[in-house]
Amino acid sequence: MSFESLWADQSAIGRDPDTGGYTRGGWTPTEREATHWFLDQCATRGLTVESDGIGNLIAWWGDAEGPGVVTGSHLDSVIDGGAFDGPLGVVSALAAVDALRAEGFVPSVPIGIGAFVEEEGSRFGMPCLGSRVAAGVLPAEKALQLKDRSGVGLGEALEKAGLDPAGVGPSPLLQRMGTFVELHVEQGRGLTAPVGVASSIWPHGRYRFTFNGEANHAGTTLMEDRHDPMLTYAMTALAANKQARLAGARATFGRLSVEPNGTNAVPSRVTAWLDARAADTATLESLLAAITKQATERAERDGTALEVTPESVSPVVDFPAGLRDRLVNVLDGAPVLPTGAGHDAGVFSAAGIPTAMLFVRNPTGVSHSPAEYAEIDDCLAGVDALAAVLKDLAK
Amino acid sequence: MSFESLWADQSAIGRDPDTGGYTRGGWTPTEREATHWFLDQCATRGLTVESDGIGNLIAWWGDAEGPGVVTGSHLDSVIDGGAFDGPLGVVSALAAVDALRAEGFVPSVPIGIGAFVEEEGSRFGMPCLGSRVAAGVLPAEKALQLKDRSGVGLGEALEKAGLDPAGVGPSPLLQRMGTFVELHVEQGRGLTAPVGVASSIWPHGRYRFTFNGEANHAGTTLMEDRHDPMLTYAMTALAANKQARLAGARATFGRLSVEPNGTNAVPSRVTAWLDARAADTATLESLLAAITKQATERAERDGTALEVTPESVSPVVDFPAGLRDRLVNVLDGAPVLPTGAGHDAGVFSAAGIPTAMLFVRNPTGVSHSPAEYAEIDDCLAGVDALAAVLKDLAK
Repeated sequence: MSFESLWADQSAIGRDPDTGGYTRGGWTPTEREATHWFLDQCATRGLTVESDGIGNLIAWWGDAEGPGVVTGSHLDSVIDGGAFDGPLGVVSALAAVDALRAEGFVPSVPIGIGAFVEEEGSRFGMPCLGSRVAAGVLPAEKALQLKDRSGVGLGEALEKAGLDPAGVGPSPLLQRMGTFVELHVEQGRGLTAPVGVASSIWPHGRYRFTFNGEANHAGTTLMEDRHDPMLTYAMTALAANKQARLAGARATFGRLSVEPNGTNAVPSRVTAWLDARAADTATLESLLAAITKQATERAERDGTALEVTPESVSPVVDFPAGLRDRLVNVLDGAPVLPTGAGHDAGVFSAAGIPTAMLFVRNPTGVSHSPAEYAEIDDCLAGVDALAAVLKDLAK
Repeated sequence: MSFESLWADQSAIGRDPDTGGYTRGGWTPTEREATHWFLDQCATRGLTVESDGIGNLIAWWGDAEGPGVVTGSHLDSVIDGGAFDGPLGVVSALAAVDALRAEGFVPSVPIGIGAFVEEEGSRFGMPCLGSRVAAGVLPAEKALQLKDRSGVGLGEALEKAGLDPAGVGPSPLLQRMGTFVELHVEQGRGLTAPVGVASSIWPHGRYRFTFNGEANHAGTTLMEDRHDPMLTYAMTALAANKQARLAGARATFGRLSVEPNGTNAVPSRVTAWLDARAADTATLESLLAAITKQATERAERDGTALEVTPESVSPVVDFPAGLRDRLVNVLDGAPVLPTGAGHDAGVFSAAGIPTAMLFVRNPTGVSHSPAEYAEIDDCLAGVDALAAVLKDLAK
């Protein structure tokens, strides 16, 4: 089956007919449908599938025991996301294994294709949930406290998907990951060549900004009598944009909750989540400090109060230079670039597994959106590159 | 039963133990509990209760037929609102009737106490829903299309409350409203005396601002590649505040909806509702124009698109001068003031019923908030004033 057919097949699953986007939260029906499609593909190829308690999967080519070379990515998506972020790495892995088999390559170590659950964290709010739990970075008891927006706990979601919550914890799958290579669509117009190799993942922080004011009547309360947290928030959102531009970094307020959220009421509270990323930790910290300073000054003027709570802060991930250079070599000097996005590859690298990433060019830089896109020729170049890398690592 | 006891009784119903506030949406269990409390009070007094299809109530003192003098207000609240907005008018009406009976006053026309449903519009998004339907301003078929935030239609809500949706429509109750006097807590520090008389209700518009941008990855998308509608919204919220101050008017963005509302996604769309009010229509229109102009300029800069949809625009209500002056006279020259808040009195006045309002002083101006407050002495002065007015109108 060609890459094109596999891709058409996979990307038909759960596409929203109105937006063209995908909403595949972990263990939801559409994500499960994509997972079953993957398992069917593995069965067709006679791959041996191993899974862990939370639902991460590795499908092995051959029956050999012991550590091997694992590639793959994830099948879940953000809310109304694009087709490529995640699935491209899984589908390319299937196509690369097909290509290696077709040419009669016999690997000296097992080659595995991984699909890791809830990488986007779009359902339970914790990015890389599957890999974090597998790597023991997130303890099972903490993971099982997570609830989705409808109040469904992780344990209940697992049970509905036929998994046993008692199995959640550090994963035996990792014992067999001798090397991990994740192929992923690039996400910021960072590539002019079809394929590149990752140098690092930027440090990344998620901070909850709580703006407390005083609810009041929108029609009668004099403007000068108000303590309107919406104004403090609005200034903070503009400050975040400005400071990120100045620092060559990224800052986004994309999630918001307003209380009481009534048209005719000055809000009592606005809660907003800042997503901030920068090339290094010092820049990230000074970015947060600059935004917080402007927000605090505005809060004084508005008579509101600001609380900033870090929800998760991930340090920089530098992928090992030796492996990275080996990939660049195999790919005839492919360009090397960092990324601002988190990936399971970052979690596995931090857990001590030799890890690398390949990126496929994104001509518009659009990602996490139905408009996310890569040219078919670049996808095919990605499959070729991945096959060459696997061949080199498993020779 | 004294005003103090009635007030303590009524204000215990549905008080949130955490915030001290009230959330009594139309036909919800807490609003129904308050309504049943009112019906019990009417029964204790031997008043004859008449109701209409949507659940508006008038309790008549005496069996006389024909038009009378009606007072009263509403028992519903905004989300997490205060104790006074609405219930003060109903409880003061009961206390005023008690006082008139105690002194042996015999009205020459019937005196009625009204409780009108969903005045705040906090459940179905339409302020003065009960009075608008009763007055025929809002046709039954339009009203029955309304849905609450959980998707429950008005018809279903009525049925759950034991009312028949087929009865929704222009109300026979209005035939007997010869005069209407609503007592209400003042809401903007507009009174230095305990009690005042209303001159007018400011024109009031609710406008939906839809900011369309492009969803994108919060970590990887270059700041300069974004079309982030949150930034356009943020500038618009600050512009609304500034323009309202300049115009001596009110402008509030208190309700917001963000798509997809994910921490790691640049939003595709922000929908925000502007509540704007001004002393006259010309000022309201120029306020909206100034805000829209600043928003549009910012949208061009952000590469986003703005759509402004008026959801409801109410013209000024000037209460009839003759009735107003009569009240001022009875109350020994009480101060006269306009209000920025909408009221059922405004709907009834526009429908041609001779209508007046009494305001009770609000020392802080806080309203639509658990902190809404009036001094007990001012409340008692309100009861006295209302009794005097009813006596004059029904003598």
